[in-house]
Parts: sequence; structure tokens; C-alpha cells
Amino acid sequence: MRIAIDAMGGDHAPEEIIKGALEAITLLDKDDELILIGIQDCIESQLSVMGRSTSAISIVHAPDIIGMDEPPVEALRNKRKSSIAVMAKMAAKDQTDAVISAGNTGACVAGCQLRMRNLEGVIRPGIAVVLPTLGGPVTMCDVGANVACKPINLYQYSVMASLYSRHVLGIERPRVGIMSIGGEESKGNILVKNARELIKSDQGLNFVGNIEGRDIFDGQCDVAICEGFVGNVVLKLTEGLVNMIFKAIKHELLQASLKLAMGFKPIMTQIYKKYDYHEYGGAPLLGVNGKAFICHGSSKSRTIKNAIMAAKKFHTVKLNAHIVDYLSKSSVRSNGD
Amino acid sequence: MRIAIDAMGGDHAPEEIIKGALEAITLLDKDDELILIGIQDCIESQLSVMGRSTSAISIVHAPDIIGMDEPPVEALRNKRKSSIAVMAKMAAKDQTDAVISAGNTGACVAGCQLRMRNLEGVIRPGIAVVLPTLGGPVTMCDVGANVACKPINLYQYSVMASLYSRHVLGIERPRVGIMSIGGEESKGNILVKNARELIKSDQGLNFVGNIEGRDIFDGQCDVAICEGFVGNVVLKLTEGLVNMIFKAIKHELLQASLKLAMGFKPIMTQIYKKYDYHEYGGAPLLGVNGKAFICHGSSKSRTIKNAIMAAKKFHTVKLNAHIVDYLSKSSVRSNGD
Repeated sequence: MRIAIDAMGGDHAPEEIIKGALEAITLLDKDDELILIGIQDCIESQLSVMGRSTSAISIVHAPDIIGMDEPPVEALRNKRKSSIAVMAKMAAKDQTDAVISAGNTGACVAGCQLRMRNLEGVIRPGIAVVLPTLGGPVTMCDVGANVACKPINLYQYSVMASLYSRHVLGIERPRVGIMSIGGEESKGNILVKNARELIKSDQGLNFVGNIEGRDIFDGQCDVAICEGFVGNVVLKLTEGLVNMIFKAIKHELLQASLKLAMGFKPIMTQIYKKYDYHEYGGAPLLGVNGKAFICHGSSKSRTIKNAIMAAKKFHTVKLNAHIVDYLSKSSVRSNGD
Repeated sequence: MRIAIDAMGGDHAPEEIIKGALEAITLLDKDDELILIGIQDCIESQLSVMGRSTSAISIVHAPDIIGMDEPPVEALRNKRKSSIAVMAKMAAKDQTDAVISAGNTGACVAGCQLRMRNLEGVIRPGIAVVLPTLGGPVTMCDVGANVACKPINLYQYSVMASLYSRHVLGIERPRVGIMSIGGEESKGNILVKNARELIKSDQGLNFVGNIEGRDIFDGQCDVAICEGFVGNVVLKLTEGLVNMIFKAIKHELLQASLKLAMGFKPIMTQIYKKYDYHEYGGAPLLGVNGKAFICHGSSKSRTIKNAIMAAKKFHTVKLNAHIVDYLSKSSVRSNGD
């Protein structure tokens, strides 16, 4: 398969992006091909610094870069030769089988949605992230593609995220929960209540009902469904809270004893390793007619490598065909706003 | 002042509730009075076991109890002699100046809203919680009273939470942020965008714009405004995530070395103490014509004591008068849904 990577996107681009691509090459099949998109000279000089030349990597020149904080839609419109714009165009023209970017998330999502169009039957794509928890990986969808969500969108997210959890993560019959504010059926807002009816009506889904914020990390579900605003808040809160706790621990440890702080270091490393969301690479944009993975802006080579491997798996298991097939057989239809 | 406490509400009722009341008594003024509401015999025998009799504590008999998991509205309707129903009725009849409960949150909020009515000018009350963070206490409102929120409600929450932060927590000019999914003005859903216009138009508020989940714990704001569904998810997620992290740390420590684990124990105690949300007692229901504090179901005596002291402060600084005064002078009006 052909995987295109935005070499210019992310806080550590292009070094870490290119490094990640080189790390992945050794794990891919012989006929797989990686395409680095970005400023040609810059990519070439990085590759030569790293002393690696391989025929499995090609370069597509894109002279512009969309900054991490640029307004996505305007940036896409004004920078048609940016790595993100070129990448999305390549996907639309079937010049690549998957795209990966750690750049401006909004621009990447907008570009992919615009160019790649939706899979047959899908109304709105959603971004899924895989959160490592004590109970195993939890696939949460949507985390920010769609902030004007309708019940039918949430139903489709539960289908797509379940299929992702099953085919890509290997969870046979993923338990689907819908994010709400209490366990009882009566709890939640109108959107959640209507969406629950749709999800419940589909016997093919392993629906476990409402879940609350605390249940996500407690093994109550394998798939957590929510609208994009809530999901995005959850994702960023998780990041902020984890940082705050470890900062607080470090502060207290250093106040208490340097020896204790040193002893605690490997514990922290171990925890970071076990519960590191970079482990699952990027977040797939489920529902587009193609394969798009969005990586965190802070991605280092490992994340990029893992995103490449996730794209490979996504391709190999033919996830999109499963989604189209499932939705074509589903009798669930919109029940309003 | 007179403070009524639901003696039967919470996982550790009535022991810890009564213990908390006794702890608070020593800190209150001479003419303050605590009223314990619940099953009289039960409360009396607890008081006598604790060997404490004081004229500052009286008992109001309420034979029924609303269970923690009962559907709130039905429970209130069917159990008119429950401690929560009696408590709300007493507040409505001006038989108490404040009410506190660690019982069924939904029933408590519904009972207080129904009986106490709203302060003049307030359209919908909101629950505010105070989160301890590295940057100091952050007052977040609403965390679940209102899941069908309009922009004008969010504006009023920013007014009420700012006044709470200033007068009760002593933050002179609290920075108000609105929870969104990106820093730029263009980010967010329709509700957030419209609410932002209202909040921004009021020069009396120290508005700092959008905040993201990660900013809450990072000293970016003193007041975080959001609609009740999002706030409730955030609150419960925070709880779940903190538990997961400490569980994971404990697991790794015990695997590594018992000595290290023992050494880490006081660090954890220290962190729990510093960042314990029980420190701020209960969550005030801002906007009702009275003073109502909702405590976590897991509340122990310390939380109840702190909630009593927060109610005392709320009363002393005349927070409700400040709210009514501010809103009566505000020219901000609804700008739609």
C-alpha cells in the first residue's frame, strides 16, 4: 500500500516525522511505499543526515506549510501548495491509500473531509482516539470533527468505532457506551436520549447504555460515543489533568527527598509507557472515503511509526468495506435533531 | 444564621454528616444554629454515642430517605417526608438560611429549584464546583443543573461564578474563561459562540476568552463556564482519571519495591490534601433564592464541616444580594438559543 505522510506537520517536524517513517519501513511489507510530502530540499537533507536512502520512500514537493495555529479553512484556501492541501488532494486522486499528519488538526480534518468525501452511507465523519486505560484500550468517537451533531451521527459513530475496535484493536465484541451524566436511561440531554434509542435498536451493536466520565477509565466499555465538542473537551482535559498530577507528584517528591524522587522515576516511565496514547499512533478520521490519521502536534517518531502501522492495519483488514457493508444493511434511520 | 443539613444523605450518613456538623459548631458564631434533618431516633442515638449535646444543634424529624440511585423527580413526588423534601420546604418557608445535602444530587437540585425559586433576574440556576489546581481554585459552572442551556444562561453563570470566586474565595478580579475546543474565537459550537458574545460585551467581567480542557488545571482562569452536560462530564472524568492514575502508580510501586511504595505514601497523602476538592465543601447551587450546597455522595465529616463553613461565608458576604444587584444593572440580554 501507499502511505502519504505530511513531513512538515507537528512541533517536531520534519526530523521526527521522517525518523518515524524510517522506523516504520522495516516493519512494512516489501511492496509498501511511503510518500513524504513537504519541502523537497528540506526532506532530502534530513534523509541524508540520517544516512538512510531507501527506494521505499519517495518525496512529493509541497512548498507551503500551514502553521499549527492558523485558522484551518482560510489556511487551506490560501495555501493550496501546503503539505496538508497536497496530501488531501493526493488522497482524492487515488495517488495514495492513506494519509497521516501531525500538523494543524483543523486544517487536516477539513482538507480530508473536503477532498476525500464520505464513504457510502456515512453522513458525517468522526475522529476516533484510542485511550489506554486500566481496562484496556477505549475507542472514543467523535473528538472534534462534528460539533453540530445529530442522533444519527452518534449512531454511525458507534458503528464505525465498534468496527475499528473489533478489526483494528482485536476486541471481539466491543461494549459500546454513550457518554452521559448518569447511568439511568432518563439521564442526559435530548441529543443523547435520541441517539441512545437509535443505538439500542441495532442488535448488531453490543450496547451497554450510558457511561459517565469516570467509567471510561474503569473498564466499563470498549467504545465511548459522544458529540465532538464533548469528546474534544474530554481529550484535552485528560491531557491537562495527567500533566498536572505528574507535575504535582514531582514537586512533592523533590520537596521530600531526592532519593525518593530518583526511585520514582522508573515508575513514571513505566506508567507513561503503559498508558501512553502515542502507542496507538494517530486518530483515524472514520467515515471518509479513504484512510486519514491525525496525530498529536507533539508527536515524535514513535507516534508516527505507530500511526503508519495503524494505517497499514486499517488497510489490511479492509475496515472501510466493513463500514459500508454494515451501514448498507442497517435499518436505523434518523430520528430528528 | 440557621443551616439545615440532610443527616440521611450520602454514603456515610448519618455518622459522618453528624460528625461534620459537630466539628463545624466550634467554628461558627454563638448565635448560629445547625438543624439536622432526618430520622429523629437515629440522629439522637448518634449524637448520644458521640457524647455531644449542644443547644446549637436541633433536629427536624423526616421519616423517609431518598436513595442515592432513585429517579430524582419521582422520588421527590413520592417521598414528601424525605429529608431532602423536608429540607427544601424549610428553605422555602424561611425556616432556615441555608441547606446542605450529600444525598441524591438530582433530587436535591430538583427539590431546591422547585421550592426555593430563583433569585430576581436569574433565569436558570447552575451548580458551581471549586476545583483545586496548580494555579489555585477554579470555580466551574454549570456542572449539571441545566442540560438545555442557552447563551444567556452561560452569561449569568459567568456573573454568578465570578461573584462567588471574588466574595467567597477571595480572588479579587477572577479571570473568566469559556470552555471550548480551541483558543481562537472561531472555535466552538453555536452555543459557545453566542455566549461568548454576551460575556465579552460585559466590561464588568474579566473575560479571557476560550479555554480548553487542559487550561483548567494550568492556571489559565479562575472561573470556567460551560453548559451542564459538559461540566458534569468534566467533573466525573476528573474523578475517574485521578483514581486511575493513582491506582496505576500503586500497582507499579508494589511491583517494583515495597520500600518505595511505603516511601511514596506520604507523598500521596500530601497531594490528596492539597488537591482535595472536599476542601471546598459542597457545590453551591447558584441562582436560587436561598443557599443550597450539594456535597459529593462520598462526603466524610470534613466535607460537611467545610460545606457548613462555605455556607456561612456565602451568607456573611451577602452573595445573593451581589448577584441580584449585578444582574439588575446588567444590560446584557438574550441573543437566542
